[in-house]
Amino acid sequence: MQWAKGLGLGLGAAALLALGIILGHFAIPKNTPSISATQDLDLEILETVMGQLDASRIRENLRELSREPHLASSPRDEALVQLLLQRWADTTSGLDSAEAFEYEVLLSFPSQEQPNSVDVVASAGGVLYSCLRSEENLTGEQGGPDVVPPYAAYAPPGTPQGLLVYANQGSEEDFKELQTQGIKLEGTIALTRYGGVGRGAKAVNAAKHGVAGVLVYTDPGDINDGLSLPNETFPNSWHLPPSGVERGSYYEYFGDPLTPYLPANPSSFRLDLANVSGFPPIPSQPIGFQDAKVLLCQVKVSVYNRLQLRNSSNVLGIIRGAVEPDRYVLYGNHRDSWVHGAVDPSSGTAVLLELSRILGTLLKKGTWRPRRSIVFASWGAEEFGLIGSTEFTEEFFSKLQERTVAYLNVDISVFANATLRVQGTPPVQSVVFSAAKEIPSPGPGDLSIYDNWIRYFNRSSPVYGLVPRLGSLGAGSDYAPFIHFLGISSMDIAYTYDQSKTSARIYPTYHTAFDTFDYVDKFVDPGFSSHQAVARTAGSVLLRLSDSFFLPLNVSDYSDTLRSFLQAAQQELGALLEQHSISLGPLVAAVEKFEAAAAALGQYISTLQQGSPDPLQVRMLNDQLMLLERTFLNPRAFPEERYYSHVLWAPRTGSTATFPGLANACSKARDTSPGSEAWAEVQRQLSIVVVALEGAAATLRPVADL
Amino acid sequence: MQWAKGLGLGLGAAALLALGIILGHFAIPKNTPSISATQDLDLEILETVMGQLDASRIRENLRELSREPHLASSPRDEALVQLLLQRWADTTSGLDSAEAFEYEVLLSFPSQEQPNSVDVVASAGGVLYSCLRSEENLTGEQGGPDVVPPYAAYAPPGTPQGLLVYANQGSEEDFKELQTQGIKLEGTIALTRYGGVGRGAKAVNAAKHGVAGVLVYTDPGDINDGLSLPNETFPNSWHLPPSGVERGSYYEYFGDPLTPYLPANPSSFRLDLANVSGFPPIPSQPIGFQDAKVLLCQVKVSVYNRLQLRNSSNVLGIIRGAVEPDRYVLYGNHRDSWVHGAVDPSSGTAVLLELSRILGTLLKKGTWRPRRSIVFASWGAEEFGLIGSTEFTEEFFSKLQERTVAYLNVDISVFANATLRVQGTPPVQSVVFSAAKEIPSPGPGDLSIYDNWIRYFNRSSPVYGLVPRLGSLGAGSDYAPFIHFLGISSMDIAYTYDQSKTSARIYPTYHTAFDTFDYVDKFVDPGFSSHQAVARTAGSVLLRLSDSFFLPLNVSDYSDTLRSFLQAAQQELGALLEQHSISLGPLVAAVEKFEAAAAALGQYISTLQQGSPDPLQVRMLNDQLMLLERTFLNPRAFPEERYYSHVLWAPRTGSTATFPGLANACSKARDTSPGSEAWAEVQRQLSIVVVALEGAAATLRPVADL
Repeated sequence: MQWAKGLGLGLGAAALLALGIILGHFAIPKNTPSISATQDLDLEILETVMGQLDASRIRENLRELSREPHLASSPRDEALVQLLLQRWADTTSGLDSAEAFEYEVLLSFPSQEQPNSVDVVASAGGVLYSCLRSEENLTGEQGGPDVVPPYAAYAPPGTPQGLLVYANQGSEEDFKELQTQGIKLEGTIALTRYGGVGRGAKAVNAAKHGVAGVLVYTDPGDINDGLSLPNETFPNSWHLPPSGVERGSYYEYFGDPLTPYLPANPSSFRLDLANVSGFPPIPSQPIGFQDAKVLLCQVKVSVYNRLQLRNSSNVLGIIRGAVEPDRYVLYGNHRDSWVHGAVDPSSGTAVLLELSRILGTLLKKGTWRPRRSIVFASWGAEEFGLIGSTEFTEEFFSKLQERTVAYLNVDISVFANATLRVQGTPPVQSVVFSAAKEIPSPGPGDLSIYDNWIRYFNRSSPVYGLVPRLGSLGAGSDYAPFIHFLGISSMDIAYTYDQSKTSARIYPTYHTAFDTFDYVDKFVDPGFSSHQAVARTAGSVLLRLSDSFFLPLNVSDYSDTLRSFLQAAQQELGALLEQHSISLGPLVAAVEKFEAAAAALGQYISTLQQGSPDPLQVRMLNDQLMLLERTFLNPRAFPEERYYSHVLWAPRTGSTATFPGLANACSKARDTSPGSEAWAEVQRQLSIVVVALEGAAATLRPVADL
Repeated sequence: MQWAKGLGLGLGAAALLALGIILGHFAIPKNTPSISATQDLDLEILETVMGQLDASRIRENLRELSREPHLASSPRDEALVQLLLQRWADTTSGLDSAEAFEYEVLLSFPSQEQPNSVDVVASAGGVLYSCLRSEENLTGEQGGPDVVPPYAAYAPPGTPQGLLVYANQGSEEDFKELQTQGIKLEGTIALTRYGGVGRGAKAVNAAKHGVAGVLVYTDPGDINDGLSLPNETFPNSWHLPPSGVERGSYYEYFGDPLTPYLPANPSSFRLDLANVSGFPPIPSQPIGFQDAKVLLCQVKVSVYNRLQLRNSSNVLGIIRGAVEPDRYVLYGNHRDSWVHGAVDPSSGTAVLLELSRILGTLLKKGTWRPRRSIVFASWGAEEFGLIGSTEFTEEFFSKLQERTVAYLNVDISVFANATLRVQGTPPVQSVVFSAAKEIPSPGPGDLSIYDNWIRYFNRSSPVYGLVPRLGSLGAGSDYAPFIHFLGISSMDIAYTYDQSKTSARIYPTYHTAFDTFDYVDKFVDPGFSSHQAVARTAGSVLLRLSDSFFLPLNVSDYSDTLRSFLQAAQQELGALLEQHSISLGPLVAAVEKFEAAAAALGQYISTLQQGSPDPLQVRMLNDQLMLLERTFLNPRAFPEERYYSHVLWAPRTGSTATFPGLANACSKARDTSPGSEAWAEVQRQLSIVVVALEGAAATLRPVADL
């Protein structure tokens, strides 16, 4: 450290003391191997890490993490906060520092005194049948006092009673269809099945037709490939038992419902409950298929959910970067579960802990320190609506937006053993490919994870030919605030099933009391080799992002996506737009500008990499790469879509993968007359995306060009 | 250049050709003196520049710039675009590159066929008196065909006729007072004087009372220290002649009215005229005091203004940075004037051209190249509402926000000869002080500009004692979109008058046909020594920002401002808030957090400066300094205040300098009942500023701290 040396010479003892304090705050920490400003990814270190990631340790992590239910803000959730802090403060395998950050957030729980209930009642008033109030205690783990009974979080209390109407998935179309059939919906109880639309949306749609209450069950056809008998289901197979009930948050948005856009600190302004939007408008309750099939006639749903302000913590641990400590690679998962949550989310946390242990050990030994800072995060209250991660992004908005290289999420690490599955924005594709090509696929054969992956998910890229297909990021886990609200390149990594062999919406015991350690150990990933594969993949991506001299974010891979969005827009919307004299010409030109700028930058990078570039030059280039994703943010584009500001990945109503603002505006304008406000909005959305693409291209061009 | 050398060795001829092309785009340009990554401000170069800035050249620039009227988008305005391009392309004194960027924007002009008119009419219908339709041709320059007749830009056409009512400054209070006096306002013509409220606000306030038309005159008491006779006014003194009329934009917002938040490119979505907000609701027309004093009884105002889409250009010129080309120091002024515009804006452009000539000459000689890039800008259509600069910030939002170190505006460079006057955000205070201390004050005596300045504008700082007082930035010139919309540290520099000697609102011929070269040469700054002083001050600030290794932005000077805002909030609002159980405690804590973080960072900087720091370490520090201002932006804080997103400098209704969102919300809530929406908004605004300050403090803390 050149400057520290220079300092020592000219300073007296008192000054040195002051200096020591200041350096303690700002300088490169201890346990730092020799540092060069051109420090690059060390392939030996990478290989060491890959070799040390230990399946049996992950298994032990999972056993501990899922030993007890750990619903957000419960005592066991708090105990896990302490476990994480302890692991990350370990003197031989811990990080540089770790801290818990607590928020006061609005959660929703069933009443302990008045359990929610669903009963079939006679017209005279007698109860003919009662649904189970908890899942059957099949393995001894479903009966404990900390198993939260099935409920719809944030559904309002109420005791509606009415005729039962089967409403399929509870979509807008489903209710319209019932109306068309002449079925009176006013005052009924709608029985719906999970899937199709979001949980809360079923109640929103139902309420528009005067429905008084909503039941939501898990259909064996959707989750168990049709199997439903006790001997076909857990604990005899991985399938959901008849009494299993999927819990979940029925809140429409994410983040703490009382403090949108503000961190839920004690002093923060909180909305009056009357002004909160996004809660289901009518009582709702989830049930198992065992009960769903016997419901008939008059049903009474009693929901006694109550809202409570609770403290919920994020735990953050950091490994300070040796060369660029102000560049953060974030790696996170939530900690809270609905019940034991062995798969969701502990399978991810088990991997996270093993990865942080290996890196922490290298760190404490003094054999390695990353070029950039690595931040590990354990988010609180994700199940209630990505609350911990959202509050974190609200609190540190500027700092994170200015400095974060990428966000890597590993929530459920293993759904099943067939293949890697990655969701992410285009700039992360190449680094995931690089990692996946170097790691052997678990199971028999000698394919790499990449070669195995491409067999299950693939697409034909005009640039690369056949490659694995990355999914796009919705709002299914904690990556949502990072990509949509902050514009940070993000990804979610997991192992999953062969979609040709099962049509399950998700692993069958999702959000039920049957998602336990034994379930994972026996049915999901015996031997934990898929967990290890995910640990290696995520670990390799993490190291590549934190240690590479040149940031491995290939921004020109956005060209592929933009081109395909454009073609879809031309095919699906072109004729309609032409009828209204709206030209896609400016959009075509903007995509071309982006492509040209990205290609030129790519050439510049190759040239630079062949030389021995100056660290400052590489930093300038890396800033262009890191900040590209930010250029697609426009907080004024869709103000009604809370948090969603990314012009390319905002929610889209249609099924065509294209520019969401444009597609949504077109679908609203389609049936209006020319010159309507809706058609003006189409033109505004078109301009918004054109300007975003041109602005993005401008950031990729040579930095001193006008 | 280490890496270019490395490259040459390993590449063949074809590769070298390709490389040449790429380097042509990306690399350090020719004419570059030896470069070191630790390159710092060169005091010899600074002295050279100070010595070469030539008053007589500035005078010649001004003569040429103000020779003809150059209203935005007029042929002469276009000719000046060419003049700038030519100067900046000069082979011996030009810049690295220069380019014009054209927008298609909505401007407003009087009709040539149907001149606007103001007549006193008899009840029978005959015309008793007609106001002048143009200013008297006193110096031969007021009679030309390109002198636009006085008008209120963006006032709607219409020919209202009615009784004249004198309405003072046309404020809300003024009209309420008339109402209280029992004066019927419906259908009247309101005669108002300039000042007090914005131009367009007079018509907005009037229309609420049913007023049919508004006249606005310049009162000799406000502009001429009471003098009004021909022999007391121009061309016999600097005072406004009786026929002089202040033109101006009556548009409420800024930027092109048809494309809010979008650059006014040909393909951009444009609002339907029916949906444009911010234009005066009723016909308005400015007049001179000569006419104002004879108006009585029944008046007819005929306004035939028309809106036109016009092309207007910004001209940009760049000097590429040698070490950090991706860091921009922006220096700009508008080009368009209402008539000849010798003071407004040509006095600023004359200085800009002299400064770019001196720097361009050093550049072309190969004796100097700045560390960071310098961008010179000549904005179009400022007079109509900061249109060129706003469109520029809309088009390059991300790039500018990520990379701009500071924006320096010199619009009117000399109002008068008494003293320097600077408006700016706290981080620029120290660099302006450093510059002003080294430059001799023009005129007799041997004071520095700083020592002279402190005699006219000063304040007592708890940190520094008595220092010159910087004004805050409203929306009076092109700095507005940079500070309010992009959060870039900005300043405006000028020489101005002794406020104890004149009470003029502004220099008397402002926006009239009497603002000519001779007016400047004879009355404003004979000898041009104040122009030279501004050129030196702005030039020194520019060089310090572009060349210093450590960015000379003293972010801890924000502590002073925050502390004084806090004290004002406690004194003015504390009791009221306490009555409503709203505590300022979190705000106090947030200000303290900011102060502590800023102080610690200051200590770190001192320590670092005493050593020989690594360029990457300084870059990381400089990023913290550059981006601090960005952390105060919140586009969701005041969505109804178009473009204003800076939590500390948004418009404030009261007269107390404090947190604007909080103050405005309090003033709205004051008369509502506890528990009202207005009181909830007070709490929301309080949280917004607390979170902004805490977020700002977080960016100042050591970069790898959690």
